[in-house]
Amino acid sequence: MRIPFEEMKAEFERVFIKYGLSKEKAEICARVHAQTSRDGVYSHGANRIARFISYVKKGWVDVNAEPTKEKEFGAIAVYNGNLGPGITNALFCTDRAIEIAKKYGIGLVGLKNTTHWMRGGTYGLYAAQKGFVSISWTNTESSMPPWGGAEPRLGNNPFVMAAPAEPEPALLDMAMSLYSYGKLQVTRLAGKKLPFPGGFDKNGILTNDPGAIEESMRILPMGYWKGSSFAFMLDILGAILSDGIGAADIDKIGKGSCGGCSQIFIIIDPEKISVKDHINEVIKKAREYIKTSSLAQGDKEIHSPGEGITAARKENDEKGILIDDGVWAEIKAL
Amino acid sequence: MRIPFEEMKAEFERVFIKYGLSKEKAEICARVHAQTSRDGVYSHGANRIARFISYVKKGWVDVNAEPTKEKEFGAIAVYNGNLGPGITNALFCTDRAIEIAKKYGIGLVGLKNTTHWMRGGTYGLYAAQKGFVSISWTNTESSMPPWGGAEPRLGNNPFVMAAPAEPEPALLDMAMSLYSYGKLQVTRLAGKKLPFPGGFDKNGILTNDPGAIEESMRILPMGYWKGSSFAFMLDILGAILSDGIGAADIDKIGKGSCGGCSQIFIIIDPEKISVKDHINEVIKKAREYIKTSSLAQGDKEIHSPGEGITAARKENDEKGILIDDGVWAEIKAL
Repeated sequence: MRIPFEEMKAEFERVFIKYGLSKEKAEICARVHAQTSRDGVYSHGANRIARFISYVKKGWVDVNAEPTKEKEFGAIAVYNGNLGPGITNALFCTDRAIEIAKKYGIGLVGLKNTTHWMRGGTYGLYAAQKGFVSISWTNTESSMPPWGGAEPRLGNNPFVMAAPAEPEPALLDMAMSLYSYGKLQVTRLAGKKLPFPGGFDKNGILTNDPGAIEESMRILPMGYWKGSSFAFMLDILGAILSDGIGAADIDKIGKGSCGGCSQIFIIIDPEKISVKDHINEVIKKAREYIKTSSLAQGDKEIHSPGEGITAARKENDEKGILIDDGVWAEIKAL
Repeated sequence: MRIPFEEMKAEFERVFIKYGLSKEKAEICARVHAQTSRDGVYSHGANRIARFISYVKKGWVDVNAEPTKEKEFGAIAVYNGNLGPGITNALFCTDRAIEIAKKYGIGLVGLKNTTHWMRGGTYGLYAAQKGFVSISWTNTESSMPPWGGAEPRLGNNPFVMAAPAEPEPALLDMAMSLYSYGKLQVTRLAGKKLPFPGGFDKNGILTNDPGAIEESMRILPMGYWKGSSFAFMLDILGAILSDGIGAADIDKIGKGSCGGCSQIFIIIDPEKISVKDHINEVIKKAREYIKTSSLAQGDKEIHSPGEGITAARKENDEKGILIDDGVWAEIKAL
């Protein structure tokens, strides 16, 4: 079914308020979840509301907690998220990093002991729309085997880079596995195979059968050994730069997906070192340049990162935001 | 054959001095190339000496150029590399970013109009050995098709992350293609196939035949669409944060591999926000944790990023550094 943006947002807000979020926090979280679905990232929009509420009920998210400053030195600050809502914690830290970047050109905020930030791209887009370049990531509980191993020991840590551009910011928002577990589930339920092998089955054979990978939990890092190493670095740098913890300890505390994790927000004010015209020109030229390539067989167009959002958003704005009937019913019943 | 470190370094130094580098620059470049081979990264150690000299002869590298400061704001500085030697330019900017990080906790140096920095990991290891966390990348001429396209329009941009640790720093040094053209060549000459499909043949079929990919130039981005998007972002952010140029223009100026490219050096002083014991503990714990996974079939061990260097370095220190007979003869003849 399809639900208009304002109706969807109002419903999310009702639920968040019912479960204890302040009016202000409920509005922010509802807006971000609705925007996420509107951009076509359904997995972290509407589809996460019920799970978020279950975490609140279990005490894994403290709806009243606010981030508190632990350390500050020059252009760096460290906050304790106190297990508050991941979205408001992450937006607060993005704003803090923006303030620092305005003063020093670059700012880094490390946020420890926080909860799931939902769609990582939210914070990149938010900063880019205000004119800032951002590099962000979060560490998470482990869900992916390290290269050479058969059991999950690495987080599927999302890494985000964004830059201001017209008509849409340039945005990279990628997790470390080739496919998410969500994608495996959706593909299996549709009775389909993955476009490329997405993991190993329980016998260690590379496969494009989503069910076999869900069973083995041997999801494939993007680029095999490369994604495995990248996930490792994001884990340790997340913990180091926030004075927080990595996957080994996140797994131990067992507060659900991302409970107690660390997030890093690096914000740069590009106009402190270059003129706006140059920045626009660089991105415009790069976007045009990749499209001068002939198309690969079977491909209809070449996208630059971030451009894919535009079509999904347009369709969802025109027709109402796509949402699974069951997911909507579950939210209405909360 | 195998050549002891000091002999190899002295020979590189002789060549660099002969072709006009100052004694100081020649010593630095010789050391970095010899260390690169010693660490087992032969492709960017001894194997690049002859090509570097050919670039000097063509005027693509100005051996006398020094980086000059163009801009500075707070914790950011921008330098023009003036097409000087990539290694000395990049080390200079790493040192500058370290100086800034000591003052502000974090420092960013953008370097435009520089030349090939050889092994990207050099700068990560250098900073980590001094106790700093680093995030660096370079943009390059295009050599990889964008996802959905069939012709090279994206640089195979290396991305580097490093953190101080004992006994070896944690180090990620990865380019955006799954395999390098060097790896394709070596595999083809050995009459072997790639372990995983590494690109498309000229008919657009995914293949593990290295020769077919060299012919089509359709090398595969790591993680397919993910590596393609990541390469795009590194290209534009490299250009934006150094007030420099991206692949579209690097291709146009045609000064060889990386001629005129942009590099970014972000350095963070982790002890400004965390204690050394915590930093060591985070990395030690993560390294141990991934090794608690059972091994995948056919795998003998699980490495954390950076650990692979130790074995290669030990063997090359004990037996002399491995070098191809032809490569050594070519250098001796320079």
